[in-house]
Amino acid sequence: MSITVVGSIAYDRVKTPFGERERMLGGAATHFALAASFFDEVNVVGPVGEDFGDAELAVVATRGTHIGDVERVPGGKTFFWHGEYGWDLGSRETLATELGVFADFQPKLSEPSSQADVLFLANIQPDLQREVHEQCQAARFSALDSMNLWIDTARESLVGVIERVDCVILNDAELRQLTGKPNLLTAAREVLSWGPSVVVAKQGEYGAALVTADSFFALPAYPLETVIDPTGAGDTFAGGFVGYVARHVEQGLGDQVLRQAMAYGTALASFNVEEFGAERVTRLTADEVHERVGELRRITHFEEAPVELTT
Amino acid sequence: MSITVVGSIAYDRVKTPFGERERMLGGAATHFALAASFFDEVNVVGPVGEDFGDAELAVVATRGTHIGDVERVPGGKTFFWHGEYGWDLGSRETLATELGVFADFQPKLSEPSSQADVLFLANIQPDLQREVHEQCQAARFSALDSMNLWIDTARESLVGVIERVDCVILNDAELRQLTGKPNLLTAAREVLSWGPSVVVAKQGEYGAALVTADSFFALPAYPLETVIDPTGAGDTFAGGFVGYVARHVEQGLGDQVLRQAMAYGTALASFNVEEFGAERVTRLTADEVHERVGELRRITHFEEAPVELTT
Repeated sequence: MSITVVGSIAYDRVKTPFGERERMLGGAATHFALAASFFDEVNVVGPVGEDFGDAELAVVATRGTHIGDVERVPGGKTFFWHGEYGWDLGSRETLATELGVFADFQPKLSEPSSQADVLFLANIQPDLQREVHEQCQAARFSALDSMNLWIDTARESLVGVIERVDCVILNDAELRQLTGKPNLLTAAREVLSWGPSVVVAKQGEYGAALVTADSFFALPAYPLETVIDPTGAGDTFAGGFVGYVARHVEQGLGDQVLRQAMAYGTALASFNVEEFGAERVTRLTADEVHERVGELRRITHFEEAPVELTT
Repeated sequence: MSITVVGSIAYDRVKTPFGERERMLGGAATHFALAASFFDEVNVVGPVGEDFGDAELAVVATRGTHIGDVERVPGGKTFFWHGEYGWDLGSRETLATELGVFADFQPKLSEPSSQADVLFLANIQPDLQREVHEQCQAARFSALDSMNLWIDTARESLVGVIERVDCVILNDAELRQLTGKPNLLTAAREVLSWGPSVVVAKQGEYGAALVTADSFFALPAYPLETVIDPTGAGDTFAGGFVGYVARHVEQGLGDQVLRQAMAYGTALASFNVEEFGAERVTRLTADEVHERVGELRRITHFEEAPVELTT
């Protein structure tokens, strides 16, 4: 199996209560690839500017990720995001977004990228997501992320892509906004009625929930005392989730596989937030990932032990 | 075993996006007792006014709860709370709080109430919680709830009571505020260092987390499409949690017992929010509770199925 991801490769300027970085490697495709590369071959599709460093490109290529479709635009500037987090990391403010080479991005997928078995459309303009989706006819499983900006400004296009993918991965607030349904379960079921068979609601520090036609599953985030920088946690989650799915898509995606995918996504995301940007996941080991999935199971497991109740 | 709860018995005026009630039975002690009475004998301690109805008193006495220490104050007015919830029920505004008979409340516990094995100090002024705690020398397990008002205005008194109880049950935001620690796990461990052996962080629609010296457990809320009124959900949770604990306090409270207590608390709270005030839990059956605990286990359970990861 192989996975193609299309999305941003970026420089981020980030300030959290625990420090700051002036210009660190970021972007949804970067975080996704660093996680998904644990599971399968990953092809990254996205543009960077002339200012993008070889060292950063080497990080994107960690664990064998293919970077042949990372297009370096002559004279262009790499996508740049500047944000700052509040004291409990629960809120963040975007101080600047400079599209740079993303402003004129026209995705052109090479043969290996377009022949991937699994596709992840990271958060970019929905029409671009649709173009990439159309170029990937071989994909047996496709998932997408999006954001409030596109729900506000390009909802129709976004719904058009959602109708074509198998899985939607959004923050719970975005699911509510997208559907106009205040209840999370109702919102998720509304999205299922448009076509996808899987909806994942990311809930930040509270974890994530999985909704399918006949099942519901929720998993808390892994508890950490040291959270340094949440940037990229959602894309790292998606990389773990979609990566695990890619390894099982051939034999079919039962409920247990999707739940395990949630656990791997959650474990990977928990490492991501322990340090700035992609620093932690870049040097993460397979053993660490497995161990944390085991811990996630232990902290969520309980035996049923009914007691007699007064009637 | 028997349980004593001290706290408010109230009339609530509540508006949610799904309707309103002008004057319904409420109060922390009411909601706690309705849940805890499934597990054990409950003694309710608290004042009501001359305006308090016999029908409402009969509801407080559901499933055999003792109301001998519900003091009806001649000429007094029952505690009254008026609040309104936002569109997704995640936020609420308090429009009025009239203390009524609570303004001059001096807890006087009868022999059965003061001899209880388990004590729950619902959210009242911390000095009153301490007086009740001192009258209950026989309690083998005591827990308390509180709120931002007391953290703001009576923090020293509150910490003084916390040092004396076994278990603290607070919203996660209150734990952060109480300790000044933005990280939930750090905040919970700070509270453990003051004396209690168990901290429960209520997280509203996201569920609840349990922190002890050597264990962490988190359980999502039960997913519901129909949430009508969250009022009393936290006290209902506490009633289920403390009730289950009361049934096991004699043989000792291991990690699994506390986790099962979390499940019972979560199940009971999920019924509470399905209708206004205490309406649903008043007519709830034991079978319904057991069934929902079973469902909670199913929606949180996953098998570990490690895959080989790229190194």
